[in-house]
Amino acid sequence: MAHTFDTVDIIRCKRDGGVLSTEQINWVIDAYTRGDVADEQMASLAMAIFLQGMNNDEILALTQAMINSGETMDFSGLGKITADKHSTGGVGDKITLPLAPLVASFGVAVPQLSGRGLGHTGGTLDKLEAIPGWQADISNDRLMEILAGPGCVVCAAGAGLAPADKKLYALRDITGTVDCIPLIASSIMSKKIAEGTASLVLDVKVGSGAFMKDLAQARELAETMVTLGNNAGCATTALLTDMNTPLGCKVGNALEVAESVEVLQGGGPADVRELTLALATEMLTAAGLPDADPAAALDNGQAYDTWRQMITAQGGDPDAPLPTAKHTHTVVADQSGVISELDALAVGVASWRLGAGRARKEDPVQLGAGIEIHKQLGATVHAGDALFTLHTDTEDRFERALSVLNDGWKVSNDAPPVRSSVILDRISATS
Amino acid sequence: MAHTFDTVDIIRCKRDGGVLSTEQINWVIDAYTRGDVADEQMASLAMAIFLQGMNNDEILALTQAMINSGETMDFSGLGKITADKHSTGGVGDKITLPLAPLVASFGVAVPQLSGRGLGHTGGTLDKLEAIPGWQADISNDRLMEILAGPGCVVCAAGAGLAPADKKLYALRDITGTVDCIPLIASSIMSKKIAEGTASLVLDVKVGSGAFMKDLAQARELAETMVTLGNNAGCATTALLTDMNTPLGCKVGNALEVAESVEVLQGGGPADVRELTLALATEMLTAAGLPDADPAAALDNGQAYDTWRQMITAQGGDPDAPLPTAKHTHTVVADQSGVISELDALAVGVASWRLGAGRARKEDPVQLGAGIEIHKQLGATVHAGDALFTLHTDTEDRFERALSVLNDGWKVSNDAPPVRSSVILDRISATS
Repeated sequence: MAHTFDTVDIIRCKRDGGVLSTEQINWVIDAYTRGDVADEQMASLAMAIFLQGMNNDEILALTQAMINSGETMDFSGLGKITADKHSTGGVGDKITLPLAPLVASFGVAVPQLSGRGLGHTGGTLDKLEAIPGWQADISNDRLMEILAGPGCVVCAAGAGLAPADKKLYALRDITGTVDCIPLIASSIMSKKIAEGTASLVLDVKVGSGAFMKDLAQARELAETMVTLGNNAGCATTALLTDMNTPLGCKVGNALEVAESVEVLQGGGPADVRELTLALATEMLTAAGLPDADPAAALDNGQAYDTWRQMITAQGGDPDAPLPTAKHTHTVVADQSGVISELDALAVGVASWRLGAGRARKEDPVQLGAGIEIHKQLGATVHAGDALFTLHTDTEDRFERALSVLNDGWKVSNDAPPVRSSVILDRISATS
Repeated sequence: MAHTFDTVDIIRCKRDGGVLSTEQINWVIDAYTRGDVADEQMASLAMAIFLQGMNNDEILALTQAMINSGETMDFSGLGKITADKHSTGGVGDKITLPLAPLVASFGVAVPQLSGRGLGHTGGTLDKLEAIPGWQADISNDRLMEILAGPGCVVCAAGAGLAPADKKLYALRDITGTVDCIPLIASSIMSKKIAEGTASLVLDVKVGSGAFMKDLAQARELAETMVTLGNNAGCATTALLTDMNTPLGCKVGNALEVAESVEVLQGGGPADVRELTLALATEMLTAAGLPDADPAAALDNGQAYDTWRQMITAQGGDPDAPLPTAKHTHTVVADQSGVISELDALAVGVASWRLGAGRARKEDPVQLGAGIEIHKQLGATVHAGDALFTLHTDTEDRFERALSVLNDGWKVSNDAPPVRSSVILDRISATS
């Protein structure tokens, strides 16, 4: 780049509420990636962005600068349309597992470059690693082969995509600058746009178990990302979905694989099936197949066949028994009534404490650990009914898990507000 | 310290407008000094403090934590009362040079731990180094000997005083978090309190050539520092003084020594003499000598004698000729009238560009470089009168210096607003 800027001037501009130019943003992201802007300078700038915000032009420039920091992928030679999904993360959110093979079963390529879990929401790669033999790391050539064949891949993103985002995300994690819409939106969208998908549906979760606790914030994030995607030529829509209570009845790596297979075989909890179908409809419509019938594909085995091919293609054995935890503990209802409260965050943290998640990047996860929910929000129960089964390999974790889980549910005579649908709203470029 | 905190929690608390506890501040400053809190984390916290502020309790805790990060000095064995002065820095501000020997000539110990210049305001050590033989670095034992004898020392602060402040200041310098009252006040006062002086007068400069551009900000800074000093048992007052136009008629290292000697011999510009006497009165009153007559001490040679002893005690030759620059250039008035504008920042930056100051810590300064002002603000001039003489060892610097200097002065028929006194206000613990 010909022009050069002073880092402190850029920080001061944002600190004082100014608008950064595209040239300033390009320069600072490029210089940070090269190491010419120091971590402490980028941390100060990130906090200034957190507190002073960014307008849409700045967010677009930041996203583009992070894309430009690395390589991009190109699926145009595949002969298939690509469609992708991204979720902002929630408790029991295993939707990628049934969704990818369901959409791929209609001839759409679904490249799901995914991450591992950190904190109380699990990671898609951790979940699939519960399947004996399954491998997250595959070469780009193999990725293309599988997309050309079965059509769906869930794998680790290569280090070459948006390296500026990787570096910046690690910095934000330790400097208290994570939960900021311009930084979240540019982080997610830089990776997705660099990946080169033709279309994208975003599942933006709202509620206690999600990043975004209220609907207005979630809507702002969704609108920002939908604008970024469409401006970059990637047809992008978003669903705002409820995450005040867990999604489905199983939380934990192997447990969520099992529930995904139920959905792929036409069963499973109604909320998981509903959200899988809604996201599949978005993806199929974007891929030019508005008349496809994803519900039929779940019910007639078409999606399950593709699932088996996808698992096999990455070395997994779809027929192998899933790992189970060494110890279980059951929580029973102490009175009759309805489940009037079932908090996503409490279930997520309890599952994490049982060993399903990790506190630090390098920690292992327990594949069989987690929580089975026998009664979802609103269910009628009788005193003595089993409400939860907790699973762990480490018996002494039950106490710490129960201390948070037991604050997160209630049986009473008051029915909770009815949740008619897990989907709260839909955001598109024209909405 | 028994208790330990999470750094990200502390950052988030301040980011969200919260108040940090004394324990949190102690912990984070101690951990930062030890290297357990990373530079990028402290940079993010500094920006959060910049934008969210700190209340008085937090500033007090921050100051105390920085004092506790290192050693403190103790002058109680001297048998003399100590008095100290700190200026926030301005163009032509050589006041320490006449002030320290003036106050010491009354039997008060004046330890002036000083710094070097960076940017457009000069450093006291750089100025005294213009005197052949004079040494800024002396041992603590020698410091005590000189204080017991002549009574005044101007020397470099040891690395052991408030090391957290040194580390934090260097970080603020590159992260756009310098000009923030809680951080400035705690930085200045932690060093002064660690130094162990019994009393302190602050010269808080206001105007174009100063850190603080407006009176309200300067007053807030002065009040904050006066409160911090008095709470720590150091009798502290502050003068708010004008820095819209340079102080005195000479700007640059050797030039300012020469003007200081004029003042010490009973002469010199009225504004320099006025401010020297006002600050001396503050220091002498704090030292229990409210009836001392500092004006007489300038006029009768008493202060000048102490100056000669002070310079000699640190290896300098008070009779040696001062260094002069190789090249001079004179600016003359193009019309008759009065000097209606003479901007401190323009003169300061021009002098800096001539070689009197440094851009980076490791740069040398030109001892003879700088600017002589022949006509101060408000003076009557005739066309052809000399207005400025520029001095430098590097002839090609004249052009760059003139380009900024010539935007900073004006001769016209409109008299400027009269500045009756350089002193704008006085802040004390009871004011």
